[in-house]
Amino acid sequence: MTHDLLLDAYARLTVRSGLNISPGQQLLITAPLDAVPLVRRITEHAYRAGASLVTTIYSDDVTTLARYQHAADDTFDTAQAWLFNGMAEAFKGGAARLAIAGEDPALLSGQDPRKLTRANKARSLAYRPALELITGFAINWCVIAAATPAWAKSVFPELPEAEALERLWRAIFSCTRADLPDPVKAWEEHSAALARRTAFLNERRYAALKYSGPGTDLTLGLADDHVWKGGAGKARNGVICNANIPTEEVFTCPHKDRVDGTVCSTKPLSYQGSLIDGIKVRFEKGRIVEMTAAKGEEAFRSLISTDEGAARLGEVALVPHSSPISASGIIFNNTLFDENAASHIAVGQSYTENIRDGGNRTQDEMAALGANTSLVHVDWMIGSGALDIDGVKADGTSEPLMRKGEWA
Amino acid sequence: MTHDLLLDAYARLTVRSGLNISPGQQLLITAPLDAVPLVRRITEHAYRAGASLVTTIYSDDVTTLARYQHAADDTFDTAQAWLFNGMAEAFKGGAARLAIAGEDPALLSGQDPRKLTRANKARSLAYRPALELITGFAINWCVIAAATPAWAKSVFPELPEAEALERLWRAIFSCTRADLPDPVKAWEEHSAALARRTAFLNERRYAALKYSGPGTDLTLGLADDHVWKGGAGKARNGVICNANIPTEEVFTCPHKDRVDGTVCSTKPLSYQGSLIDGIKVRFEKGRIVEMTAAKGEEAFRSLISTDEGAARLGEVALVPHSSPISASGIIFNNTLFDENAASHIAVGQSYTENIRDGGNRTQDEMAALGANTSLVHVDWMIGSGALDIDGVKADGTSEPLMRKGEWA
Repeated sequence: MTHDLLLDAYARLTVRSGLNISPGQQLLITAPLDAVPLVRRITEHAYRAGASLVTTIYSDDVTTLARYQHAADDTFDTAQAWLFNGMAEAFKGGAARLAIAGEDPALLSGQDPRKLTRANKARSLAYRPALELITGFAINWCVIAAATPAWAKSVFPELPEAEALERLWRAIFSCTRADLPDPVKAWEEHSAALARRTAFLNERRYAALKYSGPGTDLTLGLADDHVWKGGAGKARNGVICNANIPTEEVFTCPHKDRVDGTVCSTKPLSYQGSLIDGIKVRFEKGRIVEMTAAKGEEAFRSLISTDEGAARLGEVALVPHSSPISASGIIFNNTLFDENAASHIAVGQSYTENIRDGGNRTQDEMAALGANTSLVHVDWMIGSGALDIDGVKADGTSEPLMRKGEWA
Repeated sequence: MTHDLLLDAYARLTVRSGLNISPGQQLLITAPLDAVPLVRRITEHAYRAGASLVTTIYSDDVTTLARYQHAADDTFDTAQAWLFNGMAEAFKGGAARLAIAGEDPALLSGQDPRKLTRANKARSLAYRPALELITGFAINWCVIAAATPAWAKSVFPELPEAEALERLWRAIFSCTRADLPDPVKAWEEHSAALARRTAFLNERRYAALKYSGPGTDLTLGLADDHVWKGGAGKARNGVICNANIPTEEVFTCPHKDRVDGTVCSTKPLSYQGSLIDGIKVRFEKGRIVEMTAAKGEEAFRSLISTDEGAARLGEVALVPHSSPISASGIIFNNTLFDENAASHIAVGQSYTENIRDGGNRTQDEMAALGANTSLVHVDWMIGSGALDIDGVKADGTSEPLMRKGEWA
């Protein structure tokens, strides 16, 4: 298939399986400027599917970087609260949300970490009202990716730009199943397989997971009344959507106070323009009390210092080492892909949907069950072909859950 | 000078003379996608001038058109109220505003006029809270233009695309004085000349203007306590800005109930993607009671039917026929330029600044003085080298103001 046909299939998959746009619904897209051709295909499919109005807010790596190069030091506590409040208003009014990732993963490497910390904190705080509506699944939403020259160069540094871009697009089309004859049907089948896995885990009701592997010896308590989720889910507006394309994970809510031991990362993490790699942390009673990183240590330290909840876990996810994304052998330097190539954990905010009846509980009730609160939610990969995981029941007995990275 | 140097000079002029960005101020830009290179230069100059955060909302002619081609008929009463409310919040928070024009002037020609009317009305209504802060000069703002392939093609239909684009950019750089050795100084001098003209007109205190020319015999009453404005002005946040670059006009507020006679347009008007030309209207007691147009009559009829105030005048502006833009001989199909090549009038909303102490008066007080209220404000050109204008004093005596399009 030609690139244009694949791009169109990917756009249609996003609108139909990812967002599942309802007739009359507005759609709010955020995207990098390099994604214009994809945004145009998505916009057309959204209107064909009944969308009332599609609005895209573009980001531009060049102007993002210009701020760090030219703005006065005393301006970095500013964020676009007015725009994020507008987005929150859109979601309250029923708009669907599509985020297209594709920024340069290392755009802000080398910029003043104090400016980055201040700008990220201001942004997180301003974005919170909108983010809560997303993480709380008030509306149908989806995250996908578009290959961009800078991202492609970071993934395939040895290739010429055009070839790197083409390789990354092919990898995206393959990992998202957009290159199959009927991508929408393929996602229905894949989602059904994930649903069988979450049904199994929800039936087992483990109290904790025990991780063993190179550099990792971790007991991770699960939140009381936790719910495993994966694949398609029903948003609170009644629309069934796939919040990530691709997704290979099943995930739930850790107990914010019941994580102990050591764990090390197995893939690099791109956070707000900084590449972080070789993370090693030690948890005590849920909190990270020691940390080092081979690369980007300052950025990771800044991340987990954002607030109290940023040093505790908000998500745990299991992905078999043989997942299609892992099998591609590509390190994407992008969480949407890398998190679906390996089991992972996330510091920060937990998802309402991962606690039974979470949408109807107060914040205090959620916290008492073990749910975490933070301005941030950042995944990092700890899975590999050398990782064993046991499920630990409330009575202390345990059983093999994953062996050498695969379902036991 | 190379295109890149001229673009940079134009960007610097926009930030310094147009917006006069204050240290710590946010900047909100709207721009067509083709203006990315200009936006990047402006963003850098804004940060250098002390802006805290620059945010650009891009529009895309392709997706704008896709809506009319693919969206369901029952969705055209929808607008991005959430985005416009966010913009209003930005202005209330002190953000400056830059609008970059450059859309295809004929983008929506041929689309269903009923859909256009509904979409434009929904948009005008939703945009009103933000627009009132702009027209009321709550903050410093500026409108400029970027040459785009579609716009250039409409101006120079006989030229190849690249040449048309280059010609239009050169015309923009010339009309905005960006190609002079010191554009900022040139604008200071030009603004001083406009200030001398408004001082003269404000001293004369005409009760009405009387227009005579081919197809035109119009008596246009001025609002009580009207104020002539032109060139740089001080926004209510204390910042002196040039709201239009280029600008050649001096303008004030007509009396919404005191316009009588006939007037015909002298240049085409692009309104929301439709080209309108050869307008002839008759006013009675301020209201348009008869109208025809050689082209785009339906679009003009739809415009003046938006609401009660859309069939009455909100602005009258005087521009000598020898202005640099007129002298270029180019018909730009863009109001920012064409309105500064000819004397013009605008249907719809009047400007607070054109009534003495307007910012402190109630809407009822403003209306009693003759100020107009509407969801729209659309300029159209009535000036030419054949137009005579007299100033009519309260006692009925009159004196020559313009003869054959030039100041008498």
